[in-house]
Amino acid sequence: MTKLILHNYFRSSSSTRLRVALNLKGLPYNYIAHHLRKGEHHEPTYLAVNPQGLVPALVLEDGTVLTQSLAIIEYLDEIHPSPPLLPKSAIDRARVRALAHAIALDIHPINNLRVLNYLRSTFSADDEAVAAWFRHWVAATFTPLETMLAGDPRTGRFCHGETPGLADLCLYAQVLNNGRFGVDMSQYPVISRIFEACAILPPFAYASPINQPDAE
Amino acid sequence: MTKLILHNYFRSSSSTRLRVALNLKGLPYNYIAHHLRKGEHHEPTYLAVNPQGLVPALVLEDGTVLTQSLAIIEYLDEIHPSPPLLPKSAIDRARVRALAHAIALDIHPINNLRVLNYLRSTFSADDEAVAAWFRHWVAATFTPLETMLAGDPRTGRFCHGETPGLADLCLYAQVLNNGRFGVDMSQYPVISRIFEACAILPPFAYASPINQPDAE
Repeated sequence: MTKLILHNYFRSSSSTRLRVALNLKGLPYNYIAHHLRKGEHHEPTYLAVNPQGLVPALVLEDGTVLTQSLAIIEYLDEIHPSPPLLPKSAIDRARVRALAHAIALDIHPINNLRVLNYLRSTFSADDEAVAAWFRHWVAATFTPLETMLAGDPRTGRFCHGETPGLADLCLYAQVLNNGRFGVDMSQYPVISRIFEACAILPPFAYASPINQPDAE
Repeated sequence: MTKLILHNYFRSSSSTRLRVALNLKGLPYNYIAHHLRKGEHHEPTYLAVNPQGLVPALVLEDGTVLTQSLAIIEYLDEIHPSPPLLPKSAIDRARVRALAHAIALDIHPINNLRVLNYLRSTFSADDEAVAAWFRHWVAATFTPLETMLAGDPRTGRFCHGETPGLADLCLYAQVLNNGRFGVDMSQYPVISRIFEACAILPPFAYASPINQPDAE
């Protein structure tokens, strides 16, 4: 059987969350690295795969290309429902998606490498200004996220109950990324506890940036 | 029956996309406006509803609060499946979600009011620098999005086939927003054509910013 092909970059947090999903589902894949800092994702051969030139992209056995990490994870959960990454009831699914989207929409796109590069090139932002920007958008979401997790009885060992799901994938990848910009995680005890619960699970640990073949 | 309560702001494009979804599903709601430029979404009464202090939020008949526009729209589509906002097959659902996410993740969060305000306050960006930022991130996604739509036979009168869905809600709201920052839409004929197909439908037109009670 042809294996799945994962186009990704070790440090990209949307790549990390998709790697965790593939690992949790037990789906093997061929790893193709695109070095974002070297601009490899803008090469014509990759733009033919994903015109957006972003990672990750997943190529299915029949050659179909899927893009956008959350859309790919929802697809994997529909096609390979065990273990589930979303709960069964619609109201709980809405909660888990909202927690995931709080991170994946309200932090990650604003703190993405291409945005930080624009700050440097157009607004002459130095390392400290870039790090302050990064921490600002993390705090703007992690502060209410901590409240939302702490105040809801559906929060368990993980964001929702006792098994990891879509929100945990996003949380795990974001917290790993935070480490590079000096985010003080002591303000977020529930988020930190959930991160630790994820980090000791092999499907998460194997997906972490340092364990990828292109890690530096 | 208690009606749904929609916390939103006329000009917020994530609010617009949710209003379209509610209209397409034929769900009436009470409209509560939060004036983002006046900071009304940061008042304690609203933070008690949504700790993130973002719009939109939807309060269900039983008082449950849902946040994050895409998560709310997925919930509405699960509970009120007709008319569907996502296609039936998993692979087509992945396509529609990816098109929606390209707009909702890769443009909208970066161009949100709070980010533009940060550029003004911290990097002394003037109106022209802010507009250039806005147009840069629209072009970074709309250029490949145009390619992705033009090159796929599943694109029809709308992003996917002949009826409007999740991707069209996002496209419609983004194109409306573009008008305020001078985006040249002539570069995007397919996106423009789909926008026009949406704009003539009452569920879209009624959801547009200018038709809201708090419009200025």
